[in-house]
Amino acid sequence: MDIKKVAKNTTRVLASYITYQAVQIIFSQLSETNPPLAYWFNSFSGADKIQDGEAYLQALLKENQELAFRVMTVRDHLAQEVADYLPEMVRTEIQQANISHRRQYLERVTQLNVPDFDAHSEPQAEPDPNE
Amino acid sequence: MDIKKVAKNTTRVLASYITYQAVQIIFSQLSETNPPLAYWFNSFSGADKIQDGEAYLQALLKENQELAFRVMTVRDHLAQEVADYLPEMVRTEIQQANISHRRQYLERVTQLNVPDFDAHSEPQAEPDPNE
Repeated sequence: MDIKKVAKNTTRVLASYITYQAVQIIFSQLSETNPPLAYWFNSFSGADKIQDGEAYLQALLKENQELAFRVMTVRDHLAQEVADYLPEMVRTEIQQANISHRRQYLERVTQLNVPDFDAHSEPQAEPDPNE
Repeated sequence: MDIKKVAKNTTRVLASYITYQAVQIIFSQLSETNPPLAYWFNSFSGADKIQDGEAYLQALLKENQELAFRVMTVRDHLAQEVADYLPEMVRTEIQQANISHRRQYLERVTQLNVPDFDAHSEPQAEPDPNE
C-alpha cells in the first residue's frame, strides 16, 4: 500500500474539488451582480472541464484573466478555511458510513432469513385446501 | 460564502475518492492472488459507479459481501493514514499552482506584447507600395 502516492493523488483531487467550489461561489455572486458574465462563466465551466482544476484554470486564464485570478483567490481562501477540518470530518464520515453499511447488511441478512423460514413453515401450518 | 457547506461537500467527495483508492489497492492485490475475482471486481467497479462511494458500497454489499467489507476496512485504514497530511498538502498544492498560473500568465502577456508592438510598427517601416 503506497500511502504517499494515495496522499498525493488525494491532494490533487481535493484541490480540483476546492477549485470547483470556488467556481460555484463566484458563479452565484455573478448571478446577482453581472448575469451576462454569470451565463458565460457557467457555460465555460462545464462539468468535464473542471475535473482537472489546473487545466481548467489555464483555459480560463486565456479567456478571462480577471475571473481566473478571482477563482485562484477564492480557492486559496477556501483551502485556508476548510482544510483543517477535513481530517477529523473525513475520518468520522467514513467510520459512520461503514457502521451504517454493516448495520444495513445485518438487517437485510436477518430479514431475508425470516421469510425463508416462513416459506418453509407455511405449507405445514396452512395445508392446501385442495389436498 | 458558506464554509460549513463547502467543508461538508468536500468531505463527501474526499470519502468517495478514498473509497476509490481502496478499490484500486484491493484490485491490484486480487490481480496477484485471485485473477478471476479481480476481473469481476474491475468490471463491477465502473468509473461512473464509484463516483458516489456509499452507493457503490451498497451495491457491492449485495453482490459480494466479503469484498465490500474489505473495501470498508481498507478505506478506514487509508483515512487514518492519509487524513492528517491533507490540510498542509492541499494548501501547498493550491498556493504553488496559483503561483505557477500567475507566472505563466505574466510570461504569456509579456511575450504577446512584443509581437503586438511589432505589428503596429511594421506598417510604418514598410509602407504599402500601392499608396
